[in-house]
Amino acid sequence: MPHTLIRGGTVVGPTGSMPADVLVDGEQVAALLRPGDTSLGADLAATAERVIDATGKYVIPGAVDCHTHMELPFGGTNASDTFETGTRAAAWGGTTTIVDFAVQRTGERVQDGLAAWHAKADGKCAIDYGFHQILGGVDDDSLKAMDELVTEGITSFKLFMAYPGVFYSDDGQILRAMRKARDNGSVIMMHAENGIAIDVLVREALDRGDTAPYFHGTSRPWETEEEATHRAIMLARLTGAPLYVVHMSAKQAVATLAQARDEGHNVFGETCPQYLYLSLEEQLAARSDEWGDFEGAKWVCSTPLRSRAEGHQDELWRYLRTGDLSVVSTDHCPFCMKEQKELGRGDFSKIPNGIGGVEHRLDLLYQGVVDGRITRERWVELCCTTPARMFGLDGRKGVLAPGADADVVVYDPAGRTSIGYEKTHHMNMDHSAWEGFEVAGHVDVVMSRGRVVVEDGTYHGSPGHGRFLRRGLSAYLR
Amino acid sequence: MPHTLIRGGTVVGPTGSMPADVLVDGEQVAALLRPGDTSLGADLAATAERVIDATGKYVIPGAVDCHTHMELPFGGTNASDTFETGTRAAAWGGTTTIVDFAVQRTGERVQDGLAAWHAKADGKCAIDYGFHQILGGVDDDSLKAMDELVTEGITSFKLFMAYPGVFYSDDGQILRAMRKARDNGSVIMMHAENGIAIDVLVREALDRGDTAPYFHGTSRPWETEEEATHRAIMLARLTGAPLYVVHMSAKQAVATLAQARDEGHNVFGETCPQYLYLSLEEQLAARSDEWGDFEGAKWVCSTPLRSRAEGHQDELWRYLRTGDLSVVSTDHCPFCMKEQKELGRGDFSKIPNGIGGVEHRLDLLYQGVVDGRITRERWVELCCTTPARMFGLDGRKGVLAPGADADVVVYDPAGRTSIGYEKTHHMNMDHSAWEGFEVAGHVDVVMSRGRVVVEDGTYHGSPGHGRFLRRGLSAYLR
Amino acid sequence: MPHTLIRGGTVVGPTGSMPADVLVDGEQVAALLRPGDTSLGADLAATAERVIDATGKYVIPGAVDCHTHMELPFGGTNASDTFETGTRAAAWGGTTTIVDFAVQRTGERVQDGLAAWHAKADGKCAIDYGFHQILGGVDDDSLKAMDELVTEGITSFKLFMAYPGVFYSDDGQILRAMRKARDNGSVIMMHAENGIAIDVLVREALDRGDTAPYFHGTSRPWETEEEATHRAIMLARLTGAPLYVVHMSAKQAVATLAQARDEGHNVFGETCPQYLYLSLEEQLAARSDEWGDFEGAKWVCSTPLRSRAEGHQDELWRYLRTGDLSVVSTDHCPFCMKEQKELGRGDFSKIPNGIGGVEHRLDLLYQGVVDGRITRERWVELCCTTPARMFGLDGRKGVLAPGADADVVVYDPAGRTSIGYEKTHHMNMDHSAWEGFEVAGHVDVVMSRGRVVVEDGTYHGSPGHGRFLRRGLSAYLR
Amino acid sequence: MPHTLIRGGTVVGPTGSMPADVLVDGEQVAALLRPGDTSLGADLAATAERVIDATGKYVIPGAVDCHTHMELPFGGTNASDTFETGTRAAAWGGTTTIVDFAVQRTGERVQDGLAAWHAKADGKCAIDYGFHQILGGVDDDSLKAMDELVTEGITSFKLFMAYPGVFYSDDGQILRAMRKARDNGSVIMMHAENGIAIDVLVREALDRGDTAPYFHGTSRPWETEEEATHRAIMLARLTGAPLYVVHMSAKQAVATLAQARDEGHNVFGETCPQYLYLSLEEQLAARSDEWGDFEGAKWVCSTPLRSRAEGHQDELWRYLRTGDLSVVSTDHCPFCMKEQKELGRGDFSKIPNGIGGVEHRLDLLYQGVVDGRITRERWVELCCTTPARMFGLDGRKGVLAPGADADVVVYDPAGRTSIGYEKTHHMNMDHSAWEGFEVAGHVDVVMSRGRVVVEDGTYHGSPGHGRFLRRGLSAYLR
Repeated sequence: MPHTLIRGGTVVGPTGSMPADVLVDGEQVAALLRPGDTSLGADLAATAERVIDATGKYVIPGAVDCHTHMELPFGGTNASDTFETGTRAAAWGGTTTIVDFAVQRTGERVQDGLAAWHAKADGKCAIDYGFHQILGGVDDDSLKAMDELVTEGITSFKLFMAYPGVFYSDDGQILRAMRKARDNGSVIMMHAENGIAIDVLVREALDRGDTAPYFHGTSRPWETEEEATHRAIMLARLTGAPLYVVHMSAKQAVATLAQARDEGHNVFGETCPQYLYLSLEEQLAARSDEWGDFEGAKWVCSTPLRSRAEGHQDELWRYLRTGDLSVVSTDHCPFCMKEQKELGRGDFSKIPNGIGGVEHRLDLLYQGVVDGRITRERWVELCCTTPARMFGLDGRKGVLAPGADADVVVYDPAGRTSIGYEKTHHMNMDHSAWEGFEVAGHVDVVMSRGRVVVEDGTYHGSPGHGRFLRRGLSAYLR
Repeated sequence: MPHTLIRGGTVVGPTGSMPADVLVDGEQVAALLRPGDTSLGADLAATAERVIDATGKYVIPGAVDCHTHMELPFGGTNASDTFETGTRAAAWGGTTTIVDFAVQRTGERVQDGLAAWHAKADGKCAIDYGFHQILGGVDDDSLKAMDELVTEGITSFKLFMAYPGVFYSDDGQILRAMRKARDNGSVIMMHAENGIAIDVLVREALDRGDTAPYFHGTSRPWETEEEATHRAIMLARLTGAPLYVVHMSAKQAVATLAQARDEGHNVFGETCPQYLYLSLEEQLAARSDEWGDFEGAKWVCSTPLRSRAEGHQDELWRYLRTGDLSVVSTDHCPFCMKEQKELGRGDFSKIPNGIGGVEHRLDLLYQGVVDGRITRERWVELCCTTPARMFGLDGRKGVLAPGADADVVVYDPAGRTSIGYEKTHHMNMDHSAWEGFEVAGHVDVVMSRGRVVVEDGTYHGSPGHGRFLRRGLSAYLR
Repeated sequence: MPHTLIRGGTVVGPTGSMPADVLVDGEQVAALLRPGDTSLGADLAATAERVIDATGKYVIPGAVDCHTHMELPFGGTNASDTFETGTRAAAWGGTTTIVDFAVQRTGERVQDGLAAWHAKADGKCAIDYGFHQILGGVDDDSLKAMDELVTEGITSFKLFMAYPGVFYSDDGQILRAMRKARDNGSVIMMHAENGIAIDVLVREALDRGDTAPYFHGTSRPWETEEEATHRAIMLARLTGAPLYVVHMSAKQAVATLAQARDEGHNVFGETCPQYLYLSLEEQLAARSDEWGDFEGAKWVCSTPLRSRAEGHQDELWRYLRTGDLSVVSTDHCPFCMKEQKELGRGDFSKIPNGIGGVEHRLDLLYQGVVDGRITRERWVELCCTTPARMFGLDGRKGVLAPGADADVVVYDPAGRTSIGYEKTHHMNMDHSAWEGFEVAGHVDVVMSRGRVVVEDGTYHGSPGHGRFLRRGLSAYLR
Repeated sequence: MPHTLIRGGTVVGPTGSMPADVLVDGEQVAALLRPGDTSLGADLAATAERVIDATGKYVIPGAVDCHTHMELPFGGTNASDTFETGTRAAAWGGTTTIVDFAVQRTGERVQDGLAAWHAKADGKCAIDYGFHQILGGVDDDSLKAMDELVTEGITSFKLFMAYPGVFYSDDGQILRAMRKARDNGSVIMMHAENGIAIDVLVREALDRGDTAPYFHGTSRPWETEEEATHRAIMLARLTGAPLYVVHMSAKQAVATLAQARDEGHNVFGETCPQYLYLSLEEQLAARSDEWGDFEGAKWVCSTPLRSRAEGHQDELWRYLRTGDLSVVSTDHCPFCMKEQKELGRGDFSKIPNGIGGVEHRLDLLYQGVVDGRITRERWVELCCTTPARMFGLDGRKGVLAPGADADVVVYDPAGRTSIGYEKTHHMNMDHSAWEGFEVAGHVDVVMSRGRVVVEDGTYHGSPGHGRFLRRGLSAYLR
């Protein structure tokens, strides 16, 4: 019986921490036990094939990143991480599950878009993965496809209120998709920015000659995010559909969401580390010898970074604490400066939108624990447990419990992590949005379905170990 | 090795449910295991001294009732349950921990009040117990006593904005006690009703000849609860003290609390089953051959029952779901009709205030699961996990995890429970506030620190098994 | 010196009432005087050409209706009142100024639309009139036209978030028009309903076979009004433009407006008598021998009538009192049942939208005074003073003051008014939305620019007396 | 016929401005007329006894200051202005009516307190005056007295939630007084600060050695004002009584009031110029050769000045604009530094509370017009019209209309006013809270009941000209 025993650590979960040993059998957690417990009549440490010493460390569920975009086509190029490079980087950072977005573009069959995504990921992933489905156009066919996909384990659908002509759905289309979600139990995920208004603001900026990366942010003001968030909530209330608003960055938008939550509606919010740590002001100030003021292109993403003077970052941390924001994901969507971001030199609207960060979420959020922003229990909840429950992976992922997949991270709270391209991150990017960040905590050991994939600073994983996850319905809607 | 194995059930916790076996060793949980797991090399079922079959049942942590008043002197009489009868009734209902209120009355030393409570409980309890301390008068001595009590495991202090001349503290006293709590890490619990205003309203009612029990409720209108709640929150914000508002019944008061929570303040709210199920209208309508319209005295409690027409009950359920109410306790404070409640015949203000219910909370709340009000996970969180964490019992109580006390309930979701005196409840009362209620679910087996105290409809406990719990600081303030 | 003296009445204005005589000289008010004052050395009553006895009556400024649609083309027909019939009916009801909507339809030049409206009105009106301009399509040309029109006394522009393909502007167009309004000082008026979503709801209703008039209302639920109102406010905040939301009927939409007003934004709301008195339930219940359940078509208007059970009507009255709603207009848009409304038999979406009421506003609102909903001062403010100030007619209209136009109504608070087609109203309609209403108060005498146009139940006006009003900028934006 | 004609000016009222002449006959306004109007057949300028040229000036109603404390006993001394000196100073500043506070102290008969105030004022006042009544103790006798006083023209009663042992009423007393006000139609005015909590904070500050004037402010934090405001509102809602909260300075308190107003409750707020212009930071920084850091004593008042960094001043201006604050009064309560304020050297709690400003309100608020904070119409409404209507002086004061008292101010918008002791203000104070302020606008002519009392920088008034005003019920409650 080839068991692994992770012993001596403190198991941290969303509602408490305790000293406990974790026994892994094959791909699953077999048991949680009192430290060194021998009451079972067996000296587990002696009989285990392998013993991992977690003394002084936290033992947590492998993290779940429910918002990544591997190989996403955008603005005439593709996100620079493949499923192979991206999931490897995720594993390095303690993330053992991703949920990526399959894409249907306008005019395409939903099923074809999904098939293309399966083809990209199949046999490439270092860790387990699932898919949400982006609907690039809601019509009778795609509504039918929604039902079909739910039976295939794709139980969440993303719509865009931004990007007219690319991913944009109008309010009528949104309403129809929400009705369908209401009926089949799936979740509507929303990119909530008023893209129609933003296009005018972008045009105005360019006409004024404001072409530098910074103006990407100023032409997507908080009002456009709050407005779209409110609109999405109202359409959700009208239809009874659950709503999950992705990558929220404006405090006013979250306030609007919080109010709807107080009233008992099934609306949920996600933010990302970039909105917690980085700001519009820093983007404005960014300069480099290589790129001049185009350096700011590294932080062009949508929703955009927000003003620190307006206090968005502190408010988002607060909403993580109060529970009004439910999840932290990465919205990992990496583009290199060379040949990719630089497409937008002289016209910020042509810069591919996205920041890569699939590797750093767990560490960046742990810094919030050290800073007293959130508890370590909330850290695990935000990064592991809630994303798994939200998207129908509960029981398997995001939890350390008998019968769950043995996705485990041994985390050293006394360690430190230096982030950045120059520190050689593992994402396929020629820069880092977090260059020079040094944060508390360190991912020591990462186990995926019972297999140690990272240990002692070495990668032991392989493409194809990761399997596709047929997801169930959200645990929050039962 | 005399182990007990609870097998075949579904372990339900606040963030998920899973099929798992629970191994109990002595007074603690030794392990959680995959159902029937043999990967440890041992056939646990074979080696266990005892096997409890939980097939088709829920296995949950023993419930924690953090608001009881055994033998409380009130209105010239004493609450009718002793620690012996009261904790036995609690055990019958699946509650394995109570936190009762030691009382300092004005003019008394805090330490003397506490000592009296220890004397009442010592050697009598069927289950474990802790104490909060009521401060009947805040002065230099009692402030000093607060520090002392924290070191003795009394880490929460209750103040009253009601009952002038009995328990009432004025805003200056509250402010001083809050400052102390802020400094020593304890929690301020508040009975939030404007007692000064209420005394005038009571006087007015009696002067009008409105002396029946119903007028108890109408002379404590929601405005007096909302006002006091808001005031307590403001004093808490001013001092930085954490605040726990007990037995909330008015939706407006909870709305005020919810708003402060959204803003990130450490304020928490508790409600009780009576406010979720019963109403002022039903109290008004109550009549019996024996008592006439004095029948309504059975439901005289403070805060009072609220109007169903105004929708308080539904709103409270909603706030349980949204998380703005954190805990359901019983405020168990039983008085018999004979010789006790009847003291207030002809003058509602002389009716001892209180409803007995320590036995019924788990069942009454489970009905909420069946009704789709809350999930079963939230049921466990409200009744078991959060009260334990709130009052510094985390790691020991309210959780099924290796190393925790083996307080376990096997709960039958397919069972049914009939509540009422005539069904012979186990509380020392000559009536029931819930007479005739029949609800879903049934408490099958109750284990307290590894000992089965209820099983097969038989009580196996004994006075003195229950031990005093020295509590730590609240988990929500770390 | 041919003067008119209105004597013995109580002059009512927005901030007070006082006994005073009004001296009219030519087309203007020459003076307000103490009743019977002879301190000027002249016996005015003796020297006046004409004396109107207002003893026991209110003397108020002629009412201003800033929302009418004479001869509006809609749904393949035209609103049934011409400027001649409509302004005559207005005069009968004490309204001495209307501001009608000139229409630019998509593809048309704004100036041409305006010219057409001048042609319709010129020489026809019984009372003075001005124009707002509807923009059916915002582009570079129409933006330029906005500047031009402001110089011609058209200082307010209406956009539609409803009626895709007819009047609809998308959010980008709205944003551009608002920027222009911000710059030239004009006001953006908004029909705030999410027309894109509504079109889906209408389609769904018809597909279900819900074709009766009642379903017009249910397919425009409050969420679609609240959402659009919020969106318009956010776009207004983004651009700094003032916003005036027309014909508000949903309490939630007004609550959203009220919040923006509390924060100091220049946003204003209008409602109409139909939303204060009539309800969706009554529309559902309407039946007649002639029309069967198509009777409900009489009340098809957009925004729709709202549910009385949900309490919209009471809340709107409340908002009139608190000041969050600034104006009551009629949205007079009359269609006959025969040949007009009946176009929508079997398909509610083909019923021309509109209710006629230009004649009844002053009486219907005075009933609110009698009912204790508003004060008589607020009555005058809502019907006369604020609409004039809002749309740049202050100093001339809506006020009784020296130098103002002598538009005066002598109103009998002890009189009564019976409303309805069968009572022979003066609008060109074959029915009345208010059939059978009998309300307190009566319009006794109506003077337009010094000329008595209604007196003793007789009409003394004539087409062409009314002149076009070049309006200034809103008094609320100075 | 000795008339006065004020000609050529612009008459400014709350809902508009217009060029108009004002004819005064005896003590009343006889007429408002078109400028130079001769339509009456008389050349008024020729026949008038006196012509005041207001060309280029504003002609406004004499201002009404409804919150003054002449000769108030406080902290062992008396406010330094008598009715003679104080009303003279008021006249200099364009204020032609004050409503002062008669005082009942605990243990005293209400009627005796009122009689004492009549004695102080009778024959001394330069302008008309009324009284509110302070209730220093609510009991059966004072409740009866409330009815009596209403018949004598004292229609408003002030209670204190601050100053325990001096003016303080507990919540039960407040509730009883509110019930009485509800019944007899009078208004409850509230000093809303939690005095019980503040006393503890003051004690703490002094114990820490924080004795300088600045600590007066820090020991009355905004939470104590917001809390008391909220409590007063809840008690008012409970009883149905109207509520007028005096001297509001904390933005959070006004936000709470605004919310209650949105919900339609009869609650009103007042602020004072000191809270609009001055700040806690400036009090902290104040130093002088004569007084050292005790200089700050000049600004010791309750409620205290608030922090500019927290933005209270800007928010109060905003609330003046939105209408949530209804009135600006002065809370004129002057104390000299010598022998009065200096009583509190070394102990801020002994500094008499109060700022003198009865002379400066109109000018200070006009600066807000120039700064674009409020319109000139709103200026007149806040300083003249609303205070008169609020306290039952409508028709007589606060309005320029035929039959109203001829209290008139000719105000020069192009003038400038220098404020301060060194500029020789007319209040009986040895300093000014506004030393060195130079603001736009100037009071040129002041007329009180037809008599010019200030003109050409000369005072023409006399003690005893001012008469006691028997006030009616509030115009806002009809």
